[in-house]
Amino acid sequence: MVLYLIGLGLGDEKDITVKGLEIVKSCHKVFLENYTSVLGISKENLELFYEREVCLADREVCESQAESIYACAKEQNIAFLVVGDPLCATTHSDIILRARSEGVQVRVIHNASVMGAVASCGLQLYNFGQTVSIPFFTDDWRPDSFYDKIKVNKQAGMHTLCLLDIKVKEPDFEQMARGKIVFLPPRFMSVSVAALQLLEVEAKRQEGICTPETMAVGLARLGQATEQIVAGRLRDLAVQDLGEPLHCLIVCGELHPLEMEMLRIFLLPPESNSTCNGDDCHGAS
Amino acid sequence: MVLYLIGLGLGDEKDITVKGLEIVKSCHKVFLENYTSVLGISKENLELFYEREVCLADREVCESQAESIYACAKEQNIAFLVVGDPLCATTHSDIILRARSEGVQVRVIHNASVMGAVASCGLQLYNFGQTVSIPFFTDDWRPDSFYDKIKVNKQAGMHTLCLLDIKVKEPDFEQMARGKIVFLPPRFMSVSVAALQLLEVEAKRQEGICTPETMAVGLARLGQATEQIVAGRLRDLAVQDLGEPLHCLIVCGELHPLEMEMLRIFLLPPESNSTCNGDDCHGAS
Repeated sequence: MVLYLIGLGLGDEKDITVKGLEIVKSCHKVFLENYTSVLGISKENLELFYEREVCLADREVCESQAESIYACAKEQNIAFLVVGDPLCATTHSDIILRARSEGVQVRVIHNASVMGAVASCGLQLYNFGQTVSIPFFTDDWRPDSFYDKIKVNKQAGMHTLCLLDIKVKEPDFEQMARGKIVFLPPRFMSVSVAALQLLEVEAKRQEGICTPETMAVGLARLGQATEQIVAGRLRDLAVQDLGEPLHCLIVCGELHPLEMEMLRIFLLPPESNSTCNGDDCHGAS
Repeated sequence: MVLYLIGLGLGDEKDITVKGLEIVKSCHKVFLENYTSVLGISKENLELFYEREVCLADREVCESQAESIYACAKEQNIAFLVVGDPLCATTHSDIILRARSEGVQVRVIHNASVMGAVASCGLQLYNFGQTVSIPFFTDDWRPDSFYDKIKVNKQAGMHTLCLLDIKVKEPDFEQMARGKIVFLPPRFMSVSVAALQLLEVEAKRQEGICTPETMAVGLARLGQATEQIVAGRLRDLAVQDLGEPLHCLIVCGELHPLEMEMLRIFLLPPESNSTCNGDDCHGAS
């Protein structure tokens, strides 16, 4: 039998492909990967649309109890739904390899991913370098390896897509020390927090990669009806509230004229007291 | 009214999203962009599935007669279908900007693109650098700027996706000199030709970026039922026939253990007389 990894796209229940929907309706059991991204709609909406029960698969199920997923797939066709594309922002290589080693056939139904949909802001996808992840800083953990990757991209003129941290079903260690299994409420990094963290690292490193004047693009709820895209300097994005998750951020490299013209659609209004005095502006203001 | 740019995904008529299909069925007129990619199925299949007439829009229509598309969109909703995602491998920024300047609202319905679906080979998308395009060499035009981009990526450990040239509706200048408007048959670059051109540039440049021993992945008909993925050294890919178009090729950067494990699924059988003696192999054989 077959384990189908099916991308749901980015917005609502109708962003699944026609092929994907037919497979979901024909499968014996339907899982929804529920810890690396979130849909703009509820599980109940999905169930109504599919006329099928959907089992949530959190990190624990996917990593420790994955056998329960592909053990089913030995007997029956199973659908494993992933927000976006099954292989793009999160790679489910692990599940694919383990399923195959159990003799289960795996088939991927692709869909739109954040890594492609960012092109909505007008920056051309083939001008992007390596994608980075920005984790939430804590009091004693402030890693900055993403800065080096942005630097490599920028020095070659390339843009950098920054995927922002998601904390879903994180254990509450304080409560667990008292013997209770409690999970913290989910947290999603905003464009504003990401911009502040980038500026903090720049202040430490001083290599001119993510300065307050660096052009960047904030994107919220990409592919959903309430999608919001804002282009501006990092210091401006640091004070923007783009609302509900998910957010991501692009640090611009060299901007080509056509890219600049597209970005203008999303450009923040210039502050009266702000002047563009860096190379980063490229005629943006 | 609205000009909808709708991604069709990569395989057949059922790779459109449910939302995209509903919009196509409700639109006044349906165009299919027909010069930057090809679907695995015919226009007639699409028309049967949509129960709608589909007008082919070649390069000439899109570039010179684009007004005819968005003039319609001033009065009625128009669907402009694009293989893959409307903004990924080909950016339709030009159409978006011109439509907006005419006061036409534009909405994008995303879908899977080759730039995401390449993750099917097991290489992780966030380890890719800038994407390059490899054009057909001619007797007197053998540009190699893609080599420098692959070099930048490789030096930072990143993989490079190479999109391969497509020649659709190219004028036959010999015939045109005789006053006839004749188009050459369509041509699509194969993985084998791309590998040979990379090796030719390496022989000239000698910087060790695309050597015969460099690990690469050839992908054909990605997302279609007959999809084929082959991993091997460039010299091995240069003699592989992966069949019908479209093809693309990945020049590998540093391979992480999980990527290596996934690539093994697609690895060409080792030649009896071949030994792996370069850094590029990373334990591949």
